[in-house]
Amino acid sequence: MAKVNPNYQKLPGSYLFSEIARRTAAYSEAHSEAKLIKMGIGDVTRPLAPAVIEAMHAAVDDMARSETFHGYGPEQGYDFLRSVIAEKDFHARGVDIADDEIFISDGAKSDCGNIGDILDVDNVIAVCDPVYPVYVDSNAMAGRAGDYDAEAERWTNITYMPTTAENGFCPALPEGRADVIYLCSPNNPTGTVLTADQLKVWVDYANANGSIIMFDAAYERFIVEGGVPHSIYEVEGAKTCAIEFRSFSKTAGFTGARCGYTVVPKELERDGQSLNAMWNRRQCTKFNGASYIIQRGAAAIYTEEGERQIEETLAYYRNNARVIKEGLEAAGFTVYGAVNSPYIWCKTPEGVGSWEFFDKLLTEANIITTPGAGFGPSGEGYVRLTAFGDADATIEAMERIKKLMA
Amino acid sequence: MAKVNPNYQKLPGSYLFSEIARRTAAYSEAHSEAKLIKMGIGDVTRPLAPAVIEAMHAAVDDMARSETFHGYGPEQGYDFLRSVIAEKDFHARGVDIADDEIFISDGAKSDCGNIGDILDVDNVIAVCDPVYPVYVDSNAMAGRAGDYDAEAERWTNITYMPTTAENGFCPALPEGRADVIYLCSPNNPTGTVLTADQLKVWVDYANANGSIIMFDAAYERFIVEGGVPHSIYEVEGAKTCAIEFRSFSKTAGFTGARCGYTVVPKELERDGQSLNAMWNRRQCTKFNGASYIIQRGAAAIYTEEGERQIEETLAYYRNNARVIKEGLEAAGFTVYGAVNSPYIWCKTPEGVGSWEFFDKLLTEANIITTPGAGFGPSGEGYVRLTAFGDADATIEAMERIKKLMA
Repeated sequence: MAKVNPNYQKLPGSYLFSEIARRTAAYSEAHSEAKLIKMGIGDVTRPLAPAVIEAMHAAVDDMARSETFHGYGPEQGYDFLRSVIAEKDFHARGVDIADDEIFISDGAKSDCGNIGDILDVDNVIAVCDPVYPVYVDSNAMAGRAGDYDAEAERWTNITYMPTTAENGFCPALPEGRADVIYLCSPNNPTGTVLTADQLKVWVDYANANGSIIMFDAAYERFIVEGGVPHSIYEVEGAKTCAIEFRSFSKTAGFTGARCGYTVVPKELERDGQSLNAMWNRRQCTKFNGASYIIQRGAAAIYTEEGERQIEETLAYYRNNARVIKEGLEAAGFTVYGAVNSPYIWCKTPEGVGSWEFFDKLLTEANIITTPGAGFGPSGEGYVRLTAFGDADATIEAMERIKKLMA
Repeated sequence: MAKVNPNYQKLPGSYLFSEIARRTAAYSEAHSEAKLIKMGIGDVTRPLAPAVIEAMHAAVDDMARSETFHGYGPEQGYDFLRSVIAEKDFHARGVDIADDEIFISDGAKSDCGNIGDILDVDNVIAVCDPVYPVYVDSNAMAGRAGDYDAEAERWTNITYMPTTAENGFCPALPEGRADVIYLCSPNNPTGTVLTADQLKVWVDYANANGSIIMFDAAYERFIVEGGVPHSIYEVEGAKTCAIEFRSFSKTAGFTGARCGYTVVPKELERDGQSLNAMWNRRQCTKFNGASYIIQRGAAAIYTEEGERQIEETLAYYRNNARVIKEGLEAAGFTVYGAVNSPYIWCKTPEGVGSWEFFDKLLTEANIITTPGAGFGPSGEGYVRLTAFGDADATIEAMERIKKLMA
């Protein structure tokens, strides 16, 4: 008799976005005239850069002729993409990452989820609270989370690190064991960043304790301030303790095209094993490389033209973030994030819960946000807004909120 | 201290294709004048169908305008692709598969590798010998294989089912426990097929024992003979015991474009759990959907024009397979496969081992094959040839072999 993975039964329903969708649909149905403005899900809306489009068309044409046809590519990604990433994302910042430390994939969510394959079940996982749910759920599926305590909204074996306004959104070092630590900067959902000094504390901790830091830098391109590392490898010592996840989703609008990459330094070893070699083996066995067409598109981001074009789009979103931040502040809210991030983390009015405020914004301003509580208990009392929408709609949303709170 | 997955250390080197590459490179270097003909790796060489190219260009253009831009798609795949698959690959054959039993992915290798995520560690895996290495290695990584016995070239906890000329390439039912059974028809590497009657025996066994059949139908489009199921769901009872993997790689030349799908029937339950719901949860947590552009290309395969065009390419490869089969037989070889498959499984001359014969073909005919022993002990005494090459080169290869053996 085949047995299924028993850990799946322990998973609570993936409540957050389905509940948002349910409440939104119910409201829409009853108020068909309402013009809803979506600021909930972190998905981009601007088209791909012309340089990317051009490169993808050329790659599609390559596939139309036997002389230029591309069959199976390297599981690790094409050299043309790995080398330009090494050069532009790392060497240009003074970080020495080799081409074969970079693994191209179909996206950071796959890599964040699959990275656990190379880890033992017996590791204590530490996550920030609030947190991007994939880190937790993928570990729960692998049996590393213990049992789910529905009342506490926490897994018994996971170490949660409150990341709140009280500690400046920099979690304190854990008191108990933390073998694998997930950090995300710029952060989803809070939009805040860890400075080089703050990250150094974590890198030193990880090296001292043999921990591994899973560093999610999916929003790296939104960083505008100095002193904020774009890569954890800008911090001394990180190559012996950190894996970094990158994505073209928010950088260049690839949420639907699908491409990202993961850096596993060759200096990173545990139990005498090279994690670079293990991840390589994992990818060669359970992945067959990202699409040639999409990799060609991703490489175009690094051309002079491509860089300029994606910066235009990033500026568009950054302006939205500024509009939201200033609008909310003018309406009397306390707001975090937004500066180096497309996410705005907004404190709800005194005594008003996340879901209650979500409902208020939905029904009284027709704006869809994400309740902070959906990202973990410490997200209670916040809502997340995203800057990925239309510029005019973003301005209108802020006017509605100002009116609502007046 | 973080611990790595200890099962990775047990894996033997992924010897086969690297050893082929090593021997080929060594020969090439010493004989730069040699015109090598590659019949080793099962990768396609013909361009994508014009209908697919056209659809991909249109999809790239969709991504260039905000009105038609596609961000995050459904993790399960777009409805436009799931529904046409249900209709053309299943309903048209009288098989009742619903759209939401179909999960689109970046390829069958990912799905075959990742499907183990939803299974308990404590399952006895049964595989054919010879076998596509992904089934074995992915289970070994998950801790289901026991230890590797290098001398026997077998894992201690895996049930191997010899699949040889002696049993007509239909494995006998296992005597011991077999909770999860991998079957591949048309088979990689032997090129042979399981008939409806043969598959029925396995479906009945699985239902009687609560086993799950992982049915790899990646080469389904090569089937030309009657009585050979294109889908395991053509066999009564399969929906309560089987998961099926499909690929556009060999069907339509997508090895570099990357797209495939997996069917998990809603009737399939173990331990009271729906495997459809579990796989859905797995994909929603650790995957973010296949590329919109690639899914549009895949959907074009199912248009009238697309169907006709991919059939032309399939006919090209089928003709190669016929040329190889007839050529080898004319040269005195005993040959299997080739009829419903792009693979030709050729018995080596009496007393000549797989690697020895590989070397002979490499050095004396400049033809690269795959030694059967690389797919498992029962592959010893065979080499695999593929029909995915150029038609003229395929003809020349057979002439070289005839001359060599004359």
